Amino acid sequence: MTMTPSPFAPAAFPKLPPLRGFMMATAEAGVKYRGRTDLWVLRCDPSTQIAGVFTQNRCPGAPVDWSRKALSAKADGPRLVVVNSGTANVFSGQAGRDAVVETAQGAAKAFGGTAESVQIASTGVIGVALEAEKLTAQFGEMAERLTGDGWEAAARAIMTTDTYPKGASRTADIGGTNVTINGIAKGSGMIAPDMATMLAYIATDAAVDKDTLQTLLGELTGPTFNSVTVDSDTSTSDTLLLLASGAAENPDADLGDFRRALHEIMFDLSQQIVRDGEGISKLITVRVTGAVSDASAHVVAQSVANSPLVKTAVAGEDANWGRIIMAVGKAGEPAERDTLTIHIGPHCLASNGQPDALYREEMGEAYMKGAEIEFTIDLGLGDGAATVYTCDLTHAYIDINADYRS
Amino acid sequence: MTMTPSPFAPAAFPKLPPLRGFMMATAEAGVKYRGRTDLWVLRCDPSTQIAGVFTQNRCPGAPVDWSRKALSAKADGPRLVVVNSGTANVFSGQAGRDAVVETAQGAAKAFGGTAESVQIASTGVIGVALEAEKLTAQFGEMAERLTGDGWEAAARAIMTTDTYPKGASRTADIGGTNVTINGIAKGSGMIAPDMATMLAYIATDAAVDKDTLQTLLGELTGPTFNSVTVDSDTSTSDTLLLLASGAAENPDADLGDFRRALHEIMFDLSQQIVRDGEGISKLITVRVTGAVSDASAHVVAQSVANSPLVKTAVAGEDANWGRIIMAVGKAGEPAERDTLTIHIGPHCLASNGQPDALYREEMGEAYMKGAEIEFTIDLGLGDGAATVYTCDLTHAYIDINADYRS
Repeated sequence: MTMTPSPFAPAAFPKLPPLRGFMMATAEAGVKYRGRTDLWVLRCDPSTQIAGVFTQNRCPGAPVDWSRKALSAKADGPRLVVVNSGTANVFSGQAGRDAVVETAQGAAKAFGGTAESVQIASTGVIGVALEAEKLTAQFGEMAERLTGDGWEAAARAIMTTDTYPKGASRTADIGGTNVTINGIAKGSGMIAPDMATMLAYIATDAAVDKDTLQTLLGELTGPTFNSVTVDSDTSTSDTLLLLASGAAENPDADLGDFRRALHEIMFDLSQQIVRDGEGISKLITVRVTGAVSDASAHVVAQSVANSPLVKTAVAGEDANWGRIIMAVGKAGEPAERDTLTIHIGPHCLASNGQPDALYREEMGEAYMKGAEIEFTIDLGLGDGAATVYTCDLTHAYIDINADYRS
Repeated sequence: MTMTPSPFAPAAFPKLPPLRGFMMATAEAGVKYRGRTDLWVLRCDPSTQIAGVFTQNRCPGAPVDWSRKALSAKADGPRLVVVNSGTANVFSGQAGRDAVVETAQGAAKAFGGTAESVQIASTGVIGVALEAEKLTAQFGEMAERLTGDGWEAAARAIMTTDTYPKGASRTADIGGTNVTINGIAKGSGMIAPDMATMLAYIATDAAVDKDTLQTLLGELTGPTFNSVTVDSDTSTSDTLLLLASGAAENPDADLGDFRRALHEIMFDLSQQIVRDGEGISKLITVRVTGAVSDASAHVVAQSVANSPLVKTAVAGEDANWGRIIMAVGKAGEPAERDTLTIHIGPHCLASNGQPDALYREEMGEAYMKGAEIEFTIDLGLGDGAATVYTCDLTHAYIDINADYRS
C-alpha cells in the first residue's frame, strides 16, 4: 500500500555530520521490500564502548537474544552493527537462530572483528526467518564503499511503516573538548516501548566508559522513549544502542553537558517516532500532575494516551473530556473525582467534580481543530508528574494494519 | 449517525415471560434521544432481595455512588430500579448528585417505597448532569400502566450505541420448585468490565437470600461479564443487579441448578454485549491454556484481546499470528517463546518457537474469512486457563466514536 506521509513529517532530514570512529554502508538486500535499501552496516573503531537496552516483551526475537549477549562478549578489532528491515526474524525457530549466527559470521569476515560481538537487529514481519544469505551476499561489496557520511541513508534503510527517516544531532562539551552525538531511529506502529523503543542507534565520538553509558541510557529512557505510545503494543524487537568511539579524546570530566545533549537527542528521536505514529492526524500530549508519585502519574498518563475512546474522540475533533475522566479512573491509580482538574490547551474543562462554569463547548471545538492537542490533568493529590506523547486513532491506522502483510 | 446492525444481531429478541414480583414501565423522557424510549422503571415486591456489583473505575458516576449505598439502605414497601439512557450523569458535580436524590424521591412518591433504597443507573454521555425533572415528570403516568410483560421494552429503553436489545431467560429447579430467571443488558462500547459490565439486570422469582445472591454474582461475574472486552476502556457506570422476589416460594434447598441457569444467563448476556461491540465485523474468542495460573491466563488472554494490532489484523482477515506472539509477550506474565503453541480454529500455526511445518498460509486465509475467529494459545507452562471474548477493530468503530457526542 502507499503511505501518506505523516502531517508531522519534518521539512527535511537534519544534518548528521560524519563522526570520527564510525563508518557505514547501506544496500538493497531484497529481504522483503523492492526498490529500496533494507540493510545497514555500521563499523565502529575497536575502542568503541557500547551500551544498550532491549525490549521487555517476553517473546523477544532471536536477534534481541543474540545482541543482549553480544553486549558483553569479548571483542577484538572493529565493533559491528548490522540492521535489516523487512523481517523481524522473531518466532522463527532454529532457522532464525541460525540466520543470526550466519549474519554475524559473515559480517565479521567482511568487516573484521569478532562474530560474537556483532550487534544484530531485524525489524518487519514476525514469524518469518531471515534469509541470512541475502545479507551476507552484500557484505563484501559494502565493505568496499564504507563512508562516514551515511546517516540519512542508514535512517532510510531501517524504515518499515515509517513515513519519514528519523535523525538528530547535537554537540556537547566535556572538559573543554567538543564532542558530537548523532542518533537515528525507526518506529511507527507496535509502539509502547518498555525500556527501549523499536530501533534507535545513537553514536558519539566522545570517550565515555561503558558503565557510564549504560547508566545514562537507563536514566534517560524513561522520560523519552518510554514516554511515547502509538498503539499500546510493545514490539518484540525494541533495541536502543549507544555507541561511543572515544575518538574525540576528551578528558575524563563532568558529563553534565553530554547528558543534556544525549537527553535532547533521545527526546527528539522519540518525538519523531510518535509524530510518525501509524495513521496520525493529531499529536496528543498528556500531562499529568498532582499524582501521589511520578510513577503513578505515568500510569495515569499512559491510560489516557492508550484509550481508544480518547484517541478516536481526538481524531473526530471532539473535546469529549468525559472519556479522559473514564481513562483516569480505569488506570487503577489513586484518583479522586472531586479533586480532578482537566485542561485542554489553555481551557479549563472540568474542576471540583463538575464541568467548569466558564467553559463553553465552542472553546473546545475551536481548540480541537489544531494539529497538536494538549491535555493537562491535575489529580490534586500530591506532587507526582509525568508526560506521555501519543497520536490519535484514525481510519488510516486500520488501513495500515488490516493489510500490513499483504 | 445511523447505526448499521451488528452482523451478530440475533434474529429476534428471546421470550422473557412475566415474573411474579416484578412490574415495570418504559417512557420517552427526552433526556437526549428523540422518538424512542429512554426511561425504565422496575417495581419489585417488598420481599425482593437485591445483590449488585459496580464499576471499579476510580471515577464512578453519582448514580453508582448512590446505588452502592442503596443496596444496604433500610427499605419499606416496594423496591425500585430506575434506569435512563442519554446521559450517564457522571462527573456532573452537585447538580448530578441533586438529580439522583430528586429522581429517587420522585420515584418513591409515584411507585411507593423508600427513596434511599432506589437503585438508579444512568448511561450515555459523561459530563452532563441528568435533568431529573424529565424523569419525574413521567413517573405518575408510568405508575398507571405498570405491566409484568415489559422486558423487551425495558431492554430497548436502556440502549445507547447498542444495535439490538439484549435479553435472556432460563428456568431452574430449586428443591422441586420451578423458578424463572430473566436478564437484560446494554453495552456496546467502553466495554472492559471490571467486576461488572455496563448495565445488566437479572430478576428471578426465586427465594434466595441477599448474601447468597451476592456470592453467586461474585463467582459468576469472572467467567462472564469480566471475560468480554470491546475496547479495553472501563466504563464509569458499570452496574449489574440481581433481584430475587421470592414469589416462587421455593424451599431453602440446593442451588446447583439455579447457579447453572444464572451462569447461563450471565454468559448469554455478556456474549450479546461483545457481539454488539462497536463496529464489530468479526467475533474473536481467545482461549489461553497452559498458563501458570488461571489469573495469569486471563491477563494474557486480555492482552491479546485488547491489542489493536491483533484486532485490526482480524478485521483485515489476516492470520497475522506474529501479533499474537507480541501480545502474549507484552502481557508481562510468565511465557516462553519456545513452549508456545498457537492455533487459529483447527489449524496449528506455530509451535516450538517456530511456524508449524504443516501450516500453509492458505489455511489461515480461508479460516479468517469466517465471522467467528478462535485463537487458542497454549503457553506450555502449567494448568491455568481462561477465555476472553472480543471483537475486531474496524473503520466503523472509529466512525461511531469520532462523533459520538454530535
